[in-house]
This record gives sequence, C-alpha cells and structure tokens, in this order.
Amino acid sequence: MNNSIAVIGLGAAGLPLAAVIASNNMNVIGVDINSKKCDLINHGVNPLPDEPGLQNLIKKYGGGRLKASTNYSDAANCTVYIIIVPLFIDENHLPDYNHLHEAVKNIGKILKRGDVIVVETTVPPYTTETLIRKWLEEESNLKLGDFYLACSPERIMTGYSISRLKDFPKVVGGVDKESGLKAYNIYKKFIPNIKLVSSARVAEFIKIIEGCYRDVNIALANELFKIASILQVDFKEAREYANHAYCNIHQPSTGVGGHCIPYYPWFLIKEAERRGFYDYFRLLKTAREINDEMVYYWIKIILENCLKINKPLTQVKICVNGITFRKGVKNTHYSRNMKIAEILKEKGFNVYVSDELLSKKEIETLGFHYLKPEAADLIFDSFNLEVKINPNPSLDD
Amino acid sequence: MNNSIAVIGLGAAGLPLAAVIASNNMNVIGVDINSKKCDLINHGVNPLPDEPGLQNLIKKYGGGRLKASTNYSDAANCTVYIIIVPLFIDENHLPDYNHLHEAVKNIGKILKRGDVIVVETTVPPYTTETLIRKWLEEESNLKLGDFYLACSPERIMTGYSISRLKDFPKVVGGVDKESGLKAYNIYKKFIPNIKLVSSARVAEFIKIIEGCYRDVNIALANELFKIASILQVDFKEAREYANHAYCNIHQPSTGVGGHCIPYYPWFLIKEAERRGFYDYFRLLKTAREINDEMVYYWIKIILENCLKINKPLTQVKICVNGITFRKGVKNTHYSRNMKIAEILKEKGFNVYVSDELLSKKEIETLGFHYLKPEAADLIFDSFNLEVKINPNPSLDD
Repeated sequence: MNNSIAVIGLGAAGLPLAAVIASNNMNVIGVDINSKKCDLINHGVNPLPDEPGLQNLIKKYGGGRLKASTNYSDAANCTVYIIIVPLFIDENHLPDYNHLHEAVKNIGKILKRGDVIVVETTVPPYTTETLIRKWLEEESNLKLGDFYLACSPERIMTGYSISRLKDFPKVVGGVDKESGLKAYNIYKKFIPNIKLVSSARVAEFIKIIEGCYRDVNIALANELFKIASILQVDFKEAREYANHAYCNIHQPSTGVGGHCIPYYPWFLIKEAERRGFYDYFRLLKTAREINDEMVYYWIKIILENCLKINKPLTQVKICVNGITFRKGVKNTHYSRNMKIAEILKEKGFNVYVSDELLSKKEIETLGFHYLKPEAADLIFDSFNLEVKINPNPSLDD
Repeated sequence: MNNSIAVIGLGAAGLPLAAVIASNNMNVIGVDINSKKCDLINHGVNPLPDEPGLQNLIKKYGGGRLKASTNYSDAANCTVYIIIVPLFIDENHLPDYNHLHEAVKNIGKILKRGDVIVVETTVPPYTTETLIRKWLEEESNLKLGDFYLACSPERIMTGYSISRLKDFPKVVGGVDKESGLKAYNIYKKFIPNIKLVSSARVAEFIKIIEGCYRDVNIALANELFKIASILQVDFKEAREYANHAYCNIHQPSTGVGGHCIPYYPWFLIKEAERRGFYDYFRLLKTAREINDEMVYYWIKIILENCLKINKPLTQVKICVNGITFRKGVKNTHYSRNMKIAEILKEKGFNVYVSDELLSKKEIETLGFHYLKPEAADLIFDSFNLEVKINPNPSLDD
C-alpha cells in the first residue's frame, strides 16, 4: 500500500489516532507488539471498548483502511511514520527510552528518502532533535534533510480521545523548518486544530508544561485540602465558591496516577539538575512530593478512623473502594489508590479491595483480596475521599 | 440619617463599594482617617481617577447619598457597618491588626442592638468569629445575638472595582446562622451575585485560597520561565500554545506585589505553623519564596547584560522602566520592580527609574533618580521582562 501513514504503537493514544486518520480517507498501517490486539483490529473489533466513538471507527475501518501488524516490514512502503509508543521513567526518575529506541531503530531500517517521522510520544526537551535524530541516522544511513523529523505530542485524555483529536488544539514543530512544514501539512489532513510552532523542542516543552500545570495545581488542591481540615473548613464548599473565571482550584485526591502527569515534571527537573540549576525546580519537585505523599495522609486518616472501631486493629476489615488511577478509567498504572491498599497490606492490616471497573478475579490478579464494601468495617471511598465506618457489616459471601 | 450603611475605610476597595451602595438607592456614611479625601468625596470629586466608572458615581452621590467623614460619631445612627480597612503583615509575616482593631473598637463604641457588622477586609481564618467578635463585645458591652456579625471578603481588582461589584460572584458567611442571613439580605440589595456560605470562616478561607491559587500559579510560571531559559525555549510561545480550556499557565513576572496576593499565603502558613503542622504548607511557602526571589533572578540577568557594555560597571546607566507593582496601577506597595531598583542602588550601581504613571518628582520622592529610558545604557522593561542594551544613549536633559 503506497503513500500510507504508519502509526507505531496502538495503545490508548495510538489506536484512536490511527482510527481518526483512517476516518479521514487515508490508509493507515498500525504497528504494535501485541499480535492479539492486531488481530482484533483487523477483524473490526475494538480493543478499547471504553473509548467513546472508537468502536464505530474500528468496526468501519479495521482490516480495511486501518490495518494492524506486528511487523514493521508491513509499513515499509509508508511515507509517514508517527511514533506513539509509551515512555516511562525508571526508579531514579530518568526516562526509560527502551520502547522508543526500539521503535525508532525499526523505523530506521525501513526509512526512505523523503519520509516524514513525527514523534507523538511525550518526551523530555531535546529528545527529538538529538536522540531520535541520531537513532534514525544511525539505522538508516540517511541524514536529516534526506528525511524530515518533527514532534507533535499527543494530547489525548483517556475516555475523550476521539473528541480531543477532533476539536482540541494540537501543536507540531520540526527539528528544522522544512520538517515542521512537511509535518504540519500532513497533520492538517486529519487534525483540524493543528498549529505549527517554531521547533520540535517548543512542541516537546508545551506538552510537558501542561502536565506540570496539572500536577502543581493538584498539589495545591491537596495542600489546601489538608489546611482546610485542620481549620475545620469544608474544602468542597470553599472550592466551589472560590472558583470563577480567574480561579481554578483543582480537585483534591489521593495523588496523581496514570502514565502522564506524574512523569512529566521529572522531565524538566532532571534536565535542570543535569545542567546544575538545582534551584530551578523547587515548585515542581515540591508538588511531586506532596502528590506522592498523599497516600500516607490518607492512610493516617484511615487509621484514625479505625481507632473508633471496637475491634483489634488487625481485625478491622478495611475496604479500599476504587483502585484504578482515575475514576472511570480501567487502568491501575501508578495508581495512588492501589498504593494505599498495598501499603496497608504490607503493614499487616486486614485490607480488601473493590472497584466498580474490576472483577473479583482481576482484583485477585493484582494481589488483593476482594470484599464488597458493605461487608467491611471501614470503607475508604478513594474517588470521593470519604472514610466511612460501617457499624453493621454484612456477611461476606 | 437613619437606616444608612457605614463603610469604614474609603481606600481602593472601600470607596468603590460605598459608591456602588449609594448608587443602589441607599444612604452611605463613609469613614476614613484621611480628611482631605473625605472633603474631595463630599464635593463630588473622585480621589481614585484611575478606577473606571467611579468618577460618575462620586460626582453624582458624593456629599449627597454618599457622605464621607473622619468621625465615627457621624455613623452612629447607621444600622450596618462594613469594615474594609487594610490589613498588612509585619516582618515576621504575621498579620498586623492595628488598623482593623482601631476600626472595630470605634464601631464598638457606637454599636446598637440589632446592628449588623460585615468584615470585607481579607483576614486570616477565625478572625471574624474570634478577634472581631471579642473586640466588638468588649467595646460595646453587647453580646453576639444583640448584634450580628458576618464576613464578605472584598473581591475587588484595582482598575476593575465597579464592574467586579456588579458582575462578579461574591460570598458572605455569618459567625452564626442568623448573622449570615441578615448580612446576605442586606448585600442582596447592592451585590447582584452574592452567595450565602455556611460560615464566616469559610468566607474568609475562600478569599485566601483564591490568592494562593494566584501566587502558586505565578510562581509556577516563573519557575517554568527560568527552566525555558536554560533549555533555550521561547516561553512566551510555549505558554501561548500550552494554554487551553484546561490549562492556564500564568504570566511570568518579577514576582508578586501589591496589598493582596503576597500576604494571603502567609495567613494559612502561619495558621498551620501555629498548630504544629509544619508539613502542610510546603507548596505555598515554596511559591512565596520563588516569587520573592525573582528580583535576584532579574538582577542577575541585568548584570549579565551589563557585561556586554564596554564601560566600567558602576558607570553603566541602568534604567528600571516601570516600578509600580502592576502595569497600569499607580501603586508601589510591595512592588518587586521597585525592589529591583532598590537593590541595585544599595549595591552601588548607577541605577535610574522611569515609569509611565509617575512624574520625575514622584520618582524622586520614592528615593530614586529619574532618567528617560532612551538616555540609559541598559533598560530593564519590568512589565515586558525585557533587558535592552542601548548602543547610543541620548543625552540626559
């Protein structure tokens, strides 16, 4: 298939993008390491059923204009390569480039003169112009100018992916001027609200600071929530009336989970640290710490409530209700709610888990005991931040 | 004059409020320590010419429905007392209650059974229900219940005061239920968008956290601006494209000045500190520090640019252009721009000041030498965050 677009990575961000491109009258080859997922897509079956609007697109284009494969050679005739594989951080908060490096090497092997590569994965500043360019040049024996390289970070939000691609502002920037323009003209065909920015680095930075805004504002909400509690002020009421056109105090929480926001501040912190600017990331780091430490705050609140129950502490049945990283998203990646259950378990408490999106079996696979909330002595409703003592627990069945 | 409303404090927040009340068909006695200001108002002359819409109101009602006086006895027949005097913080970041205590004592002396007192001054949580109540009871020999006490923090923004009173959401909460309701029913007559909240303490807290939101988000903008500078990213461009419906990265600056935002975080920091929760204000304190330290960042940038000028460092004519705390507001209270000029002066640099809102004489009264920017070797344009080297300074006149 000629002149088609390859989308490397068919995850929560990549698959919706591939489907939207296909729906804009283009041929798409999706490449993913998961062969089962590729089979489903090629049979018109949507592997992400919770993503509104995706079902229809996969049914219509899967196996037709949108073909999935585990094999990069199936994408060898493409002229555009969009990379949208995950990038995690390791235990030292440094980016783990494994998936990205692997994807870029494989693209390098099939790269041809005139091809355009666009990085959608959220990466630290300079990644596109240094690492990605280097890996592509090494593997392809081509030079930048033979191929074009740009960055257009995905702005997907799980559960809103299709609508975000249709309405939401998105940016693209090239490692050189021609790359930016080429990528922009391609993206215009399927992203109505695409803006060309001055460089790949600015595009990278834009995505990261969005995440930093969210992380810092969630930390602010958490800090104000804690202060409200010691001042005996109803934070929910205060927040409702404090917010207006110029004030957007976020929701407090058990912290920030998922694949995105908890990682992005580290991209900047580590870049500043490497350059010796140890004083340039105090707010970002403090916010990260506050959000990550919220699990201990909630454990303290849970245990303070356990004291009100007339049972030996280790016999109090505690149920953490809701362990996905966000309400309504069936994903426990870096979930702080799950972390609360883990810590309580490690400490030897009698902790159970329930979750409206997870079956008993799925909960057990994650290493927890399931209990329906009604059967617990104490329920921590993680999404509502409510600790409820249950005076008459029902029998467990 | 019976059944009229007293407004205690005719400053930037109090006078617009008094004028708006008068414009809603009510009689107002404004009390202020500044007799010259009172005279102007009584002659229909507006002492705050930069406040759009105020001019007309003072002309129409000054000396008529709105009378100003330095004497609390002129407000003795009022039934409602609105306190809107300044509250500063001292060098230990603790509230300086002097003005407020004085105002409350004077109200206490003329307080009558059934009167309603509303605190508009932004105060730390618990101030209305503890200090203000105590001071009123001590001075009046009445008890809460004989009088009614509520808090409705002003939400004025200098330059937008009249429109804010007309459109903007405002809250009021009582120290008891009846006080809240009484104050709400009075405020409904002149504040269209007034909401009754559950307590005076919540009302106090709401105003403070709005300020904290601003301070933390300005600190975030300043931190991201500094990181962008070391990564050679154009922050202005990045910010423009990062912001959308769910992202509101603020403008970077030389810090936060004025009477409001730099104070409010301390109200919460000190309350948490007093209660021993030393870990509950890390983000608020870090944000304060980052904003306050921006003056040193800009001094560093100014001096780095001085090195490019081929003159002995102490002979380089530096002009800080813009020293009010915010663009367009003729006020230098806690101005960080002025602080930059002060520090450069203290360090022995050849520093000058200019400001579109201040005359040469006014600048000299503040302790600086005036210079038109064109005559300087280096201009720091504080509101645009631009350092400009001037290769051909004009002669000073």
